[in-house]
Amino acid sequence: MSANSIGKNLTLTSFGESHGPFIGSVLDGFPAGMLIDLKALQHQLNRRRPGQSALTTSRTEKDSVQIISGVFEGKTLGTPITFLIPNLDQKPQDYEALKTIYRPGHADALWDLKMGHRDYRGGGRSSARITAGWVAAGALAEQFLSQYQMGPIKVCAWVQQIHTIQAHIPNLVSREEIDKSPVRCPDLEKSSEMESAILEAKENGDSLGGTIRVRISGVPAGTGEPVFRKLQAQISQYMLNLNAVKGIYFGDDSHAHERFGSENNDSWISENGKIGTETNRSGGIIGGMATGADITFELYFKPTSTIKKEQTTINHLGESVTLSSEGRHDPCVLPRAVPIVESLSALAIMDLLLDPVSRL
Amino acid sequence: MSANSIGKNLTLTSFGESHGPFIGSVLDGFPAGMLIDLKALQHQLNRRRPGQSALTTSRTEKDSVQIISGVFEGKTLGTPITFLIPNLDQKPQDYEALKTIYRPGHADALWDLKMGHRDYRGGGRSSARITAGWVAAGALAEQFLSQYQMGPIKVCAWVQQIHTIQAHIPNLVSREEIDKSPVRCPDLEKSSEMESAILEAKENGDSLGGTIRVRISGVPAGTGEPVFRKLQAQISQYMLNLNAVKGIYFGDDSHAHERFGSENNDSWISENGKIGTETNRSGGIIGGMATGADITFELYFKPTSTIKKEQTTINHLGESVTLSSEGRHDPCVLPRAVPIVESLSALAIMDLLLDPVSRL
Amino acid sequence: MSANSIGKNLTLTSFGESHGPFIGSVLDGFPAGMLIDLKALQHQLNRRRPGQSALTTSRTEKDSVQIISGVFEGKTLGTPITFLIPNLDQKPQDYEALKTIYRPGHADALWDLKMGHRDYRGGGRSSARITAGWVAAGALAEQFLSQYQMGPIKVCAWVQQIHTIQAHIPNLVSREEIDKSPVRCPDLEKSSEMESAILEAKENGDSLGGTIRVRISGVPAGTGEPVFRKLQAQISQYMLNLNAVKGIYFGDDSHAHERFGSENNDSWISENGKIGTETNRSGGIIGGMATGADITFELYFKPTSTIKKEQTTINHLGESVTLSSEGRHDPCVLPRAVPIVESLSALAIMDLLLDPVSRL
Amino acid sequence: MSANSIGKNLTLTSFGESHGPFIGSVLDGFPAGMLIDLKALQHQLNRRRPGQSALTTSRTEKDSVQIISGVFEGKTLGTPITFLIPNLDQKPQDYEALKTIYRPGHADALWDLKMGHRDYRGGGRSSARITAGWVAAGALAEQFLSQYQMGPIKVCAWVQQIHTIQAHIPNLVSREEIDKSPVRCPDLEKSSEMESAILEAKENGDSLGGTIRVRISGVPAGTGEPVFRKLQAQISQYMLNLNAVKGIYFGDDSHAHERFGSENNDSWISENGKIGTETNRSGGIIGGMATGADITFELYFKPTSTIKKEQTTINHLGESVTLSSEGRHDPCVLPRAVPIVESLSALAIMDLLLDPVSRL
Repeated sequence: MSANSIGKNLTLTSFGESHGPFIGSVLDGFPAGMLIDLKALQHQLNRRRPGQSALTTSRTEKDSVQIISGVFEGKTLGTPITFLIPNLDQKPQDYEALKTIYRPGHADALWDLKMGHRDYRGGGRSSARITAGWVAAGALAEQFLSQYQMGPIKVCAWVQQIHTIQAHIPNLVSREEIDKSPVRCPDLEKSSEMESAILEAKENGDSLGGTIRVRISGVPAGTGEPVFRKLQAQISQYMLNLNAVKGIYFGDDSHAHERFGSENNDSWISENGKIGTETNRSGGIIGGMATGADITFELYFKPTSTIKKEQTTINHLGESVTLSSEGRHDPCVLPRAVPIVESLSALAIMDLLLDPVSRL
Repeated sequence: MSANSIGKNLTLTSFGESHGPFIGSVLDGFPAGMLIDLKALQHQLNRRRPGQSALTTSRTEKDSVQIISGVFEGKTLGTPITFLIPNLDQKPQDYEALKTIYRPGHADALWDLKMGHRDYRGGGRSSARITAGWVAAGALAEQFLSQYQMGPIKVCAWVQQIHTIQAHIPNLVSREEIDKSPVRCPDLEKSSEMESAILEAKENGDSLGGTIRVRISGVPAGTGEPVFRKLQAQISQYMLNLNAVKGIYFGDDSHAHERFGSENNDSWISENGKIGTETNRSGGIIGGMATGADITFELYFKPTSTIKKEQTTINHLGESVTLSSEGRHDPCVLPRAVPIVESLSALAIMDLLLDPVSRL
Repeated sequence: MSANSIGKNLTLTSFGESHGPFIGSVLDGFPAGMLIDLKALQHQLNRRRPGQSALTTSRTEKDSVQIISGVFEGKTLGTPITFLIPNLDQKPQDYEALKTIYRPGHADALWDLKMGHRDYRGGGRSSARITAGWVAAGALAEQFLSQYQMGPIKVCAWVQQIHTIQAHIPNLVSREEIDKSPVRCPDLEKSSEMESAILEAKENGDSLGGTIRVRISGVPAGTGEPVFRKLQAQISQYMLNLNAVKGIYFGDDSHAHERFGSENNDSWISENGKIGTETNRSGGIIGGMATGADITFELYFKPTSTIKKEQTTINHLGESVTLSSEGRHDPCVLPRAVPIVESLSALAIMDLLLDPVSRL
Repeated sequence: MSANSIGKNLTLTSFGESHGPFIGSVLDGFPAGMLIDLKALQHQLNRRRPGQSALTTSRTEKDSVQIISGVFEGKTLGTPITFLIPNLDQKPQDYEALKTIYRPGHADALWDLKMGHRDYRGGGRSSARITAGWVAAGALAEQFLSQYQMGPIKVCAWVQQIHTIQAHIPNLVSREEIDKSPVRCPDLEKSSEMESAILEAKENGDSLGGTIRVRISGVPAGTGEPVFRKLQAQISQYMLNLNAVKGIYFGDDSHAHERFGSENNDSWISENGKIGTETNRSGGIIGGMATGADITFELYFKPTSTIKKEQTTINHLGESVTLSSEGRHDPCVLPRAVPIVESLSALAIMDLLLDPVSRL
């Protein structure tokens, strides 16, 4: 498995640099015969797109995706599906000054050390821009999941916390409700507070982090494998490959470690011949396998590393320099990270659903 | 990659059921020519062994490991190294009663659903007993790391929190200091509190969870890959495959998501021609690659699912039953999980160190 | 994927050295719920066993296999199945003299170069003895295939040529007929000639090669993938990992390259709504996928490298030495290679059958 | 590993259909810092290009490749390198008539069976056109090999046999000499005969096969792994994924199976402290590892399946139809297959060279 590919059965290969001609991805292992809803796919890309609101970077990419293989007469062929997204609004001159500067919180220094040769323009391959190719693929996986033979599987993510502002979210919330908030936090009161906090941070040349919660419903009981392909390990592997994610916690809240066993256990029940659990404290996973209940987890995002505030760091010669980033960047990545997290969730789950049969 | 194997270059394949004749593992990709310290290897197994103290299960396995391949005249051959550990103190009759009962917090129901045929004795393949084979392999990886050509790499894990009792741990602590505490928490005052809490929970037929912190020092800057093989994703994939782990958080504490960017960024510095970071809030990883600073993270463990307290659940016919587990189990798995976490850390890091060269 | 593992869905991991305590293998990905026929499994091992006849090495291993994981109450669990075969009749003293000698046609020199440390006893890990672990696994795969849901799949291999003696074999021949010949060549007249040739070579301290033909019937049309997982590439990968195999040729004979296109093409026909080909010159594979017809191919084996005849070579100091191998070895490996080839065929096919669904 | 990817360390992912907008590939794992010779890369593509001579198809693709990622300022970045090649001279109308016909020797019927939905234009994904993306990647691998740190590695392939016409080729021959022949057979006398034979077959609406021989020089001794990653298995896996290849045979000729062991063994020698073999009958591979001598093997190609001669076959309804292919195709694929074979060789070898260190 290459270091730019993920997934055993449904393999996503990512390619491209922030300021090259294109970024994109190849999705292999997708079954043949699915009619593609291009509009829904583009809609998910638009939710990730820069320039959506005052909360996001002013880079204005249309991010219109072209599918150049794997689809014929509107349907998947069972062959690799290649997504191309052109890089249009490039301002490499913004980055010329950064050519030799090692930005705090960024990997420039490590690229130089490891590779010796680096595309310094906009972070090159380390740019979150490359996730547009992931979202295109994930949106397709979502379409597969929504019409899954054993019943529809739905992924939903929202902003739960920005900085120290925590939202209170009812259990069931729709993507439409989430999108009513520019922060993608469906607790609209807290959403306003969060918005103000982000704009204030922006004004101060600073940035904020927070948490995103995810709920995946409809995953059939038994999905995942009991030893080294546990459902939670699969999801974690996908999520921790997203740039600003520092942690993950499975469960209906993030307090399992502080409960007694007798408080934390989900008891098994049976309804109409179908097994399930009475409660869902486990976040829908027991012993590495889906219980059939909603899969729920929380992701911890660090604040954006690129800030306008002056910072001291070094250049490639090891000389001390001061830096104030004037380039385009998000003061808080979480609103735009929501569709990326949904896409990674869909890819991780679909990959497991394609596992070989486990019994005669 | 099979669902019982992990690691691209250094592949650990795990096998065995809790009450079969043996559990064990095969470690492939280990370089030739390393002299094995069997005593150190067995010592790490002893730290994981059941029956160590009043805090652990009373199952008394010696867990003496036999290496049946891959080693000749005391040195590794560059061929697969196979570890065999016999299961001796089996009490399958303890489990006869559980043959048809779906224990809360356990995957019995899901095994029946997914596989149709199940080894119900002691959890079968879902038993944490199989991690003995992981620890044997991980202990060998630790020996490789401790003599790594670019400088020694050391892994150290300890209990940071039990239930709601949080320890205060100085930055540098040794495995010897950790082992002075039966809880494996080197804050001896808090350790006593934790010990009492665990024994009290045991008395009440209940169980506790908590957190383990890990520090890996000496990992060369640049270890890990920038996109889908990020150092944090690799470690998370290994850790979330450990039974009771519900979450992970990278960083010197678990609060990055609540900091401002200007507080959270680690600035680059240069000392004697070697780059590094002034602070280490990132937990030693930036852009998916090691910065050269200590890699630090925290793991969240749920409380043991097996408890003596009476619980209501169902049997394989869907009938409601009450259950009070009399079998042998740990009221809190964290003390014994410490060497498992160290082993998984060592395996995850060594696998990355064996990656192909990244530059001409 | 480790260098001692093969198979994407059904992964065989091989371990062990010729003169270690055990050789064996782990087979992962095998579905749960299959009743194992241990007798049939051992029978296939017996066909590979040394000491069967005057044609084979006099090493007398019983090769009785023990399954130590993955099977419970006689049925597969869907967990890794581990096979252990003890090495009993070891004569390491036979090899003491060879400790520093680089045998012609053997890889001793390359092990020293590559690994620096080598188990010189009986070829160590390069010994064909390790294929006993493959045959155990392959025999299990054959049991799966023989009861495959879409109809039984049968593998049959026989010796087609020894040295320059070519047999004439009717299209349909059974394993029982094949085993009537000590050479495993069902053309009994040619079999006698081959037998004499082998014994004569043995007398002369020399060895012989030849070819084995394989026929796999019942593989469903569409098995295999059209680009980099072609059925013929999968089979070749498995077969060329068998020690003495130098080549492979797919088709009902090995002359496709000398035919005109108009002579070579298999035309499509339809019978009772089932498509197929009128002829089967392609050996049952077109465009990387099974046509539904018998899959047929030929394997070219070099003569055994170990011979009694005096040869000149070097030792580890580069000094010229003469060598006359007195150790136990086969003057011709083909009779014992037949069950190994069958096992590898079964593993290769079953791995493809477990591929994910290719269409909605 | 996806079914359209090959290579463990250097992973080639192929995408595209014959009549889609582009075909191409992504090459991941290529080290950073290599200056790319685009002219040499395009030259190798030109050798594969259709429309070179009267011997090849009249489809006139320029096959000019665009690299859209992984290269910056002319040098590789250590990130995925994506090659795009537009499909220009498409005549889908040629194929409209074939929409429902199952061509003899082609996989149309199997695509319909397996995928249910098929791009019938020019063979879709089964077209040999997609190998242009492999040649681009392979040409880059050749550039890596030619400047390999342990000494240059060179790949050279030529046509050895067309139909029954066998060439006599001196051991050392250059790519320039090979290209003097339109057949790519450097025995110019036989080349003329072959040329006539191909043109005669073309005139008759028929097609021819033959063999290609390959010599790879400079591969360091010890390359390859002794068990399931044998050098010969790696090469075979790559080669048997090439459409018309029916077989492979390693060695300086294809007669090892008919020799005595005493004739066939290569004895070890030592020269200036470097080990090697006196003869090279093995084709440069012993025990799965390179001996340091030239790696040599022969590939057997079936005649082109597409012919003008009338053939009887069926359509998708199972009705009998007669077919005379008027589309553009090669009467013999071998001349154009030469650079493809070289590219696959280079990719297979480079992938092994990037394997982890095998010793401390």
